[in-house]
Amino acid sequence: MAELTRLRSSIDNLDAALVHLLAERFKCTQQVGELKARAEMPAADPAREAVQIARLRQLAESSGLDPHFAEKFLALVIDEVIRNHRRLQEPEDPQA
Amino acid sequence: MAELTRLRSSIDNLDAALVHLLAERFKCTQQVGELKARAEMPAADPAREAVQIARLRQLAESSGLDPHFAEKFLALVIDEVIRNHRRLQEPEDPQA
Repeated sequence: MAELTRLRSSIDNLDAALVHLLAERFKCTQQVGELKARAEMPAADPAREAVQIARLRQLAESSGLDPHFAEKFLALVIDEVIRNHRRLQEPEDPQA
Repeated sequence: MAELTRLRSSIDNLDAALVHLLAERFKCTQQVGELKARAEMPAADPAREAVQIARLRQLAESSGLDPHFAEKFLALVIDEVIRNHRRLQEPEDPQA
């Protein structure tokens, strides 16, 4: 039980670090979205995504993370980013 | 374009950090799974999960991450952890 408590405390610390890094990542992608909206660039960039997926799979392998999980994680993040980018590109609501 | 390149370089650095933290997190949950299997404890722990979700939503709010996204992220991770724990609890294949 002491061992379980110790491990859960480490997991909670890692989760706090993960949330803070994710917050920082979305701050960056928010800026990317604003740049793209100003430049009228498309929200999604399949070529960039393919490079990111290949790179993360490799990083996952070298760090002992299941590469399949790393890919699912990146898909969740990119999905959210593209949704946010599209929102930045939508014209203002004319009723507002 | 220089600004986009700069932001993408930061995103790549953050992704590398996220992958390494996730690898470390799964090392911890692997140990939890082994402990649980030895103690014949159930793979899932809804009470612990509820506490984790509430805590991460709060951390997300204070760090500027969408709490709804934080919850989706934790659900993806916990889902993978429970699948791994169940695998540790399955009896060995008698044919093997």
